[in-house]
Amino acid sequence: MATASKAWAVVAGVGPGTGAAVARKFGSQYPIALLARSAENYEPFVKEINDAGGKAIGISTDVSDSTSIKNAFQKIESEFGSEGCAAAVFNASGRFFRKSILDLTEEEFVAGFNVSTKGAFLFTQAALPHLLKTASSSNNPHPPTIIYTGATASVKSNALMSSFSTGKYALRALAQSTAREFAPKGVHVAHAIIDGVIDIPRTKEWLKDQPPEAKISAEGIADAYWNLHTQPKTTFTNEIDIRPMLEKW
Amino acid sequence: MATASKAWAVVAGVGPGTGAAVARKFGSQYPIALLARSAENYEPFVKEINDAGGKAIGISTDVSDSTSIKNAFQKIESEFGSEGCAAAVFNASGRFFRKSILDLTEEEFVAGFNVSTKGAFLFTQAALPHLLKTASSSNNPHPPTIIYTGATASVKSNALMSSFSTGKYALRALAQSTAREFAPKGVHVAHAIIDGVIDIPRTKEWLKDQPPEAKISAEGIADAYWNLHTQPKTTFTNEIDIRPMLEKW
Amino acid sequence: MATASKAWAVVAGVGPGTGAAVARKFGSQYPIALLARSAENYEPFVKEINDAGGKAIGISTDVSDSTSIKNAFQKIESEFGSEGCAAAVFNASGRFFRKSILDLTEEEFVAGFNVSTKGAFLFTQAALPHLLKTASSSNNPHPPTIIYTGATASVKSNALMSSFSTGKYALRALAQSTAREFAPKGVHVAHAIIDGVIDIPRTKEWLKDQPPEAKISAEGIADAYWNLHTQPKTTFTNEIDIRPMLEKW
Amino acid sequence: MATASKAWAVVAGVGPGTGAAVARKFGSQYPIALLARSAENYEPFVKEINDAGGKAIGISTDVSDSTSIKNAFQKIESEFGSEGCAAAVFNASGRFFRKSILDLTEEEFVAGFNVSTKGAFLFTQAALPHLLKTASSSNNPHPPTIIYTGATASVKSNALMSSFSTGKYALRALAQSTAREFAPKGVHVAHAIIDGVIDIPRTKEWLKDQPPEAKISAEGIADAYWNLHTQPKTTFTNEIDIRPMLEKW
Repeated sequence: MATASKAWAVVAGVGPGTGAAVARKFGSQYPIALLARSAENYEPFVKEINDAGGKAIGISTDVSDSTSIKNAFQKIESEFGSEGCAAAVFNASGRFFRKSILDLTEEEFVAGFNVSTKGAFLFTQAALPHLLKTASSSNNPHPPTIIYTGATASVKSNALMSSFSTGKYALRALAQSTAREFAPKGVHVAHAIIDGVIDIPRTKEWLKDQPPEAKISAEGIADAYWNLHTQPKTTFTNEIDIRPMLEKW
Repeated sequence: MATASKAWAVVAGVGPGTGAAVARKFGSQYPIALLARSAENYEPFVKEINDAGGKAIGISTDVSDSTSIKNAFQKIESEFGSEGCAAAVFNASGRFFRKSILDLTEEEFVAGFNVSTKGAFLFTQAALPHLLKTASSSNNPHPPTIIYTGATASVKSNALMSSFSTGKYALRALAQSTAREFAPKGVHVAHAIIDGVIDIPRTKEWLKDQPPEAKISAEGIADAYWNLHTQPKTTFTNEIDIRPMLEKW
Repeated sequence: MATASKAWAVVAGVGPGTGAAVARKFGSQYPIALLARSAENYEPFVKEINDAGGKAIGISTDVSDSTSIKNAFQKIESEFGSEGCAAAVFNASGRFFRKSILDLTEEEFVAGFNVSTKGAFLFTQAALPHLLKTASSSNNPHPPTIIYTGATASVKSNALMSSFSTGKYALRALAQSTAREFAPKGVHVAHAIIDGVIDIPRTKEWLKDQPPEAKISAEGIADAYWNLHTQPKTTFTNEIDIRPMLEKW
Repeated sequence: MATASKAWAVVAGVGPGTGAAVARKFGSQYPIALLARSAENYEPFVKEINDAGGKAIGISTDVSDSTSIKNAFQKIESEFGSEGCAAAVFNASGRFFRKSILDLTEEEFVAGFNVSTKGAFLFTQAALPHLLKTASSSNNPHPPTIIYTGATASVKSNALMSSFSTGKYALRALAQSTAREFAPKGVHVAHAIIDGVIDIPRTKEWLKDQPPEAKISAEGIADAYWNLHTQPKTTFTNEIDIRPMLEKW
């Protein structure tokens, strides 16, 4: 593997699916840290990347906990050095509750925000100093990038979806505010509206009667994120949507 | 005063401005409960409404605290009876921090969501059984209504505004999800994007070099909310924007 | 009838439904001109308003033809005088073609724009001098208002709907540009997204298995338009949506 | 040059800037037709692509004229064969009039729609049979793609901009309707919101006091379009925004 620079990448919310695909893609170019609550979620992908000649570490992290996030970034720097962060991808979502407003507990309602938004805020705050360091260095082929994974629920809030959609709407607000504040400092901030079912082991039984083009490929998302990352300072995309060919929208 | 029905109204987030104007407007037609954290915020308006022949009570309430909200609605029912709620207006917003993502504490960041969104959720959950009771009764001239006060930051998330805008984006998601779930049950849910400076004592010195049409009148907002409330089941408006004649947008 | 002022109103696109209801509502307060391509569309409502003690005229007008529009406004002024226009409502839409992109003729494709957008532009250009006259006079209880009737297709462009949706998207652009240019001059510009089936003779057989709350009442729309018109300069609503209680959205 | 397939590409609206950059990018992979009203707009780029070993032709075309568009596609097929169209980019915009609603002539007002929207419709209708042919063939590495160039005015309609913004809003409606109709048939339809000043000879004197990151690079746009084109059927992006690092939005 030819590491494109000494700056590193980090992905929060790794599991089979988008997180793993993004880790693989960015891990083929940068030393990369894989964050997930439980080690079993990242371990196979850490091993896979290292076996392929890359340099990956996994860190058990609760993104909704500021201390856990701080510790994770300290660990990354101690492992990968202080060249700064080339790319940070926030891919975590809170547990999903499909429930009436009348039936949600307070804890369930805030679960979406706590992970999708507060977690993204803590991750952003921890990543930004490292992204700004990369922005001011001339060693990096691409502007440092932070990408947030959104969903259909980032722009449409259906019945029974309030716990999830409030967190995703708020995440979009965070992404836009961060973009407006840090683009002039050279950090590329992007938000992706993933609109559809991602083709992962957990969704294997979904849409079974449909052709493969009814689901989103996680590799396709990772490629799109990489294309965002490689945009120059003159051409920043701040929002994309992604859906499979057969999605109704 | 001729009380139009025995159903009552409730306004959360009362202070000089929108809350007081809404209380006055709806209090001229319904028994009304005024909620605010501190009694000094609602007392003058409770007195004013009662002096004018209406029927108002004030209840010190922390909308971000579920017990406080539950107590408030129990008190309302014990005072005004169990005819149900004709109109519930959520007008509270978290304390405002104009700060960089890098400088916000975790507590400051979540303050917007805690009041604007979690508070609105708790308020909605507590108000809905009373709104549904009114919906199924034939005593009421207008469909029961819940209205949320949003802001420019509900649809645009500027730099340094993330604490406020994340709460307001998420509030809009809550409003849309609630509307989609409860409109078929006869509850009218509306979200208002208040885009501009409201003309209240606190903003007296703002835009001083401009004519009065540079600020929004709180009475105008209250009239708009009343017009939303009086819409029939065949004609629900779920979102309006409101700005003064001289606002740039 | 108590005419609220000598300024007059005008409605383009009159037929059974929104146009007639708006004519009735505004015609109870202002002398009013009803425009439609064919006289049979406005005649019953002209008669009805005059019989009720109002003052109405009908003018056969092709809104997509600039000469026809100019003649209409000259006729209005010669009939109602030069006090200016209190309210102008543009309610016309092009003929509807539900067709594939591949099957639309050029003529069919542009039909939406020609009526919904070019017609609205010609109507706006003709109405504005009369609206500005009213804005600068102190005789009028309400700021002069121009309201455009949009549709679901103003914000969502479905398959087979391109002829209709391109005209409605463009109408929304026209409304926003007009609002931004003329609000500072005292003209209230509003756009209404009518999302659902309006309950009119033509749609009698639609949604027959559903309760009445599955359709929008034209009177409800007219009331909403009147409420927009009576907003003061400090509190302009530039966009509302309107749907029946049972609409899926 | 290694031509990736025998299918060809076409770009409408070629001139120094986005059109030329897109022609260069797609012309390095596909035989390509460059359409512009006047030959001087495409000739230098046709020559450049052919000199670089590519295969390019230029066709003088008025996109707002259906016969002109039909002739262009017949010419393309007779030159490049009937393997179908791999990529079609619509980059034309009407002449720009920054004028009050009151001052625009009817001709000026419709100029935006006639090119940006009707032109796009005619182009789409002519390109689709060729795109569908490619979609059903197994010779092509990427799903056939049609991309429309939008602008800030596609989603924000400022004062004095109505001629331009009505055309661009309507173009966005056309893109969405086309995407929803033809994605299930394997055609990737994308709309790009270009938000900012593109760095071309004509804008050389604009933003002169600012660093290069204040303008969008046309090459960056072309790369983004290429990245859209190479997305697989499982991962279609239907809308992106593009702005330079220093753009205020």
